[in-house]
Amino acid sequence: MEFGKVDVGDRVSVVLKDHSEEGRLMPSTDSDIIMIKLDNGYNVGFENCDVLKVELLSKAKHAPKEENVVSKNSKLPTIAILHTGGTIASKIDYKTGGVVAKISANDLVEMVPELAEFCNIESKTIFNMMSEDMSPHEYGVLADAICAEASKGVKGIIIGHGTDTLSMSSAVISFMIKNLNIPVVFVGSQRSSDRGSSDAAMNLICAAKFIASSDAAGVYLCMHENSDDTSCVILPGTKTRKMHTSRRDAFKAINSKIVARVLYPSGEVEILDNDYVKADSVKEELELKGGLSSEVALVKTYTGMKSSVFDYYTDSGYKGMILEGTGIGHAPTNSAANEGNYLALKRFIDNGGVVGITSSCLYGTVHEHIYSNTRRLGKIGVVFCSDMFSETAFMKLMWLLGNYSAPEAKKMLALNLRGEISSKLAYSEKFSPDN
Amino acid sequence: MEFGKVDVGDRVSVVLKDHSEEGRLMPSTDSDIIMIKLDNGYNVGFENCDVLKVELLSKAKHAPKEENVVSKNSKLPTIAILHTGGTIASKIDYKTGGVVAKISANDLVEMVPELAEFCNIESKTIFNMMSEDMSPHEYGVLADAICAEASKGVKGIIIGHGTDTLSMSSAVISFMIKNLNIPVVFVGSQRSSDRGSSDAAMNLICAAKFIASSDAAGVYLCMHENSDDTSCVILPGTKTRKMHTSRRDAFKAINSKIVARVLYPSGEVEILDNDYVKADSVKEELELKGGLSSEVALVKTYTGMKSSVFDYYTDSGYKGMILEGTGIGHAPTNSAANEGNYLALKRFIDNGGVVGITSSCLYGTVHEHIYSNTRRLGKIGVVFCSDMFSETAFMKLMWLLGNYSAPEAKKMLALNLRGEISSKLAYSEKFSPDN
Repeated sequence: MEFGKVDVGDRVSVVLKDHSEEGRLMPSTDSDIIMIKLDNGYNVGFENCDVLKVELLSKAKHAPKEENVVSKNSKLPTIAILHTGGTIASKIDYKTGGVVAKISANDLVEMVPELAEFCNIESKTIFNMMSEDMSPHEYGVLADAICAEASKGVKGIIIGHGTDTLSMSSAVISFMIKNLNIPVVFVGSQRSSDRGSSDAAMNLICAAKFIASSDAAGVYLCMHENSDDTSCVILPGTKTRKMHTSRRDAFKAINSKIVARVLYPSGEVEILDNDYVKADSVKEELELKGGLSSEVALVKTYTGMKSSVFDYYTDSGYKGMILEGTGIGHAPTNSAANEGNYLALKRFIDNGGVVGITSSCLYGTVHEHIYSNTRRLGKIGVVFCSDMFSETAFMKLMWLLGNYSAPEAKKMLALNLRGEISSKLAYSEKFSPDN
Repeated sequence: MEFGKVDVGDRVSVVLKDHSEEGRLMPSTDSDIIMIKLDNGYNVGFENCDVLKVELLSKAKHAPKEENVVSKNSKLPTIAILHTGGTIASKIDYKTGGVVAKISANDLVEMVPELAEFCNIESKTIFNMMSEDMSPHEYGVLADAICAEASKGVKGIIIGHGTDTLSMSSAVISFMIKNLNIPVVFVGSQRSSDRGSSDAAMNLICAAKFIASSDAAGVYLCMHENSDDTSCVILPGTKTRKMHTSRRDAFKAINSKIVARVLYPSGEVEILDNDYVKADSVKEELELKGGLSSEVALVKTYTGMKSSVFDYYTDSGYKGMILEGTGIGHAPTNSAANEGNYLALKRFIDNGGVVGITSSCLYGTVHEHIYSNTRRLGKIGVVFCSDMFSETAFMKLMWLLGNYSAPEAKKMLALNLRGEISSKLAYSEKFSPDN
C-alpha cells in the first residue's frame, strides 16, 4: 500500500480495488485500520490490506491556538460549555481538521459564529471519552465542574456529551446537584445516515438560545425535534431516553411532557409545559451530594432466568438492584419452577439489599396492588418504581445508596425527588416517542 | 369482618370504613387479601383488616358444562383456539362469573357469539399461567399443541396468552416451527384503566376474521390498534414488542411494518404490508425444532458494570448471552476502567460462548463497523444483531443453542431466519410506536 505524506486531519482519498472514498483522516486506535470521516459525518474504517493507496487531497488548516476566553460583551449573558467527549466533540474537532484535546472558546466561536451574537462563551474540556464508558468517577468530575461554573454566576451551562448515555448523565446530575438556580443543558450530536449535515451546531445554538432567554433552573437536554433542521426540543433531565440508534430526533420524553421547543434559526422559545422549575423559586443554597455506590446492578428479567443470577449479586455484596421486569411490574418469580428466583430475591433483600422494579415496556407505570403476583413481590420489600424507566431508576438508586442508608434509600426510591416520577398520569395521552 | 355467604364469581360489595367497592369476587392466593374484579376490568385487593363486610349483590350464573366442540357448519372454516392463561383467559372466565380451568368451545361461543357466524371453533386449554412465568418447558408444550392442530387441517390457530411475554412467545414459536402453512395468531388482552370495556372479545374476533379471510402463513399477533374499539392490527411475530404497561394499543411493530388492519366490527381486512409469507408459497413439510437451551442469559449493560458479572456466566457454564448495549452497539468495555469487562467478555467467548449485542434504543440498528470500539467487540467475536431488539435476539439464541452447535448458532444469529432482521431499513421512516 502506498501511504503518501498525510497527517491526521488532512483531506485524503482512500483508493481501494474497485473504488475510492474521500474524507478526513482520523486517528485510528487499531494499526490495521485506516479510518476516515466522510463528508456525511460517518467514520468508516478500511483494513490496511484492502487499501491500494492513500492520497493527499489537501492539508488540514490548523486553527491558531489562542486564549480560552474571547473578549466579552458585558451586555450579553455568559454561558459555560463543558465538553466531555462523544460525537459532538469529535464533529467539532474534525471540522477544524485537527485533533484538539481542548476546545477553546475561540475554536467554538469560529465554528459556530452565531453564538457570539447573543452570548459570551466560556469553553472547557473536562474529559474526553465515549459516553458508553462513563462511570461514577466521571460523574463526580462533571458534577464538581458544574458546581464550580454555577458559583461563578453564569446564566447557564451546556454539557457537550456522547449520546449513548447522555440521558443517564442528565439523570444522575439531576440527583447529585440540588437547588441549581440556573439551567444545565446536556447536548449531544447523533450520526445521521440520511442527511449530510451535522446536528452538533444547531443543537448547541438552540441550547444556548434557551439558556439566554429562559427563567428555567435544573437539568435538561436539547436535541433535534425531528428530521428537519427547524427546531430542537428541551427535554426533562430525568425522563428522557435515547430511542433510536442513529436518528437525530432519537431522544424522547418518556411518560412526560416536552418542556419547550426552540425554533431554528430564529431561536424563538415556545414553552410547552410550564411546570418546570423557575430560577427565582430556588431560594436555598446549591448542594452537591456526590456519593455514588458502585454496588448497584441493573438486571433485566427473562424467561428461564435462574436464581443463581440473584445469588451472584447477594454473594458479591451488592447493596442495590434495579430489576427490569415485564408489564405492570412482573418478574419470573411465581410458578413452581420460578419459586427459587423469589427466594433468591428475598435473600438479597433480607441481607440488606434494596430492590426496585421497573417495566421493560418503558411507557406506563408499574403497580404493586393489581395482581397477587406483584403484591407478593411488594411483600418481601421490592419497591415499585412507578413510571421511572430502568436507566433513571438505576442512576437514582446508585446515588441514593451512595449518600443514604439502605432503609432511607428504599423509602426515597419510591418518592419523586427531581421530577423522575410523574405525579399525575400525564403520559397516558402521550404514548409516543413523537410527543 | 362480616363475610356473607358469597362464592368466587358472585357479584359483591366490599364495604370499607369510608366507602365501598362493587365487583366480582376473585380467588385470592393470599388469605389476608380479598380480591375483586371491578367493572372496568381491574382487579383490586383489600387487606382483610380494612374490610368491614362483604355483601352479596347477586349470585354468579354458572354456564352449563358441555362438550368441547359445538356442532360444526361444514361450509365454514375451522379455527383452533389454544388457551395458555393470562388476562385474556381471566376475562373470559370471569365474564361467566365462574372459575373455569378449561374454556370450552361452548363457553367461548356463548361469550363471543360473533365467532360462530363465520367459523367453527375448537377450543383447548393447554395450560394456565401468568405469562411472566413462561419457561422453555411451556414453549415446548405450546409448540407441540400448535403442530398437532396444524396437522388436523384447521384454517388457522389462535393462541390466547398473557400480554407480558406475548411477543416473546410469538418470537420463539416463529423459530421453533418452520414451514407453517397456516396463520398462528397470538392474542392477549390488556387491562385498561381508561375504558370500562375489555379488549379480549374484540381482539379474538379480529384475529379470527383475519384467519378466516387470509392467505397468510406464519406467526402473528392481533391487538388493538389504538384506544378506540374500531380496529385491530396484525403484527409480525418476531418484531413486535409490548411498549406500554396498561394501554390496549401497547403492542407495536419495532423496526418493521404492520402486516394488516382488521376493522371492527365489519371484520374487513386491509393489507398494509404485502411482504408476508403466503400460505401457498409454503411447499415443504412442517418442521418442529423444539430444542431450547436454558444456558442463555439476557444481560443489560450499565455504567460502572463489573467484570465479575460476566465471570459469573462464564463460570456457571452458560453457552450464550445477549448483551443489551447502548446506541449503535456499545458496551462499557473501552476505557482503562472497563478493560476488565472486555477481557471477561473475551473469556466467555474463548470458552465457547456465543455473545450477541443489541441496543437499548430499540429503534434503529446496531453496526459493527462505524466506531473503533464496536469493531473491537466484533474482533473478539461479538455478533451484532442488526435491528433485532433484545427479547427477540434472546429467544432466537436460546433456540439456536438448543438445536445447533455454537459455531452454527453464532453464524445464524446474524442471519434473517423468520423476518426478525429487516433486509432493508424500512424502519427509518417508521420511528414511532404509532406506526
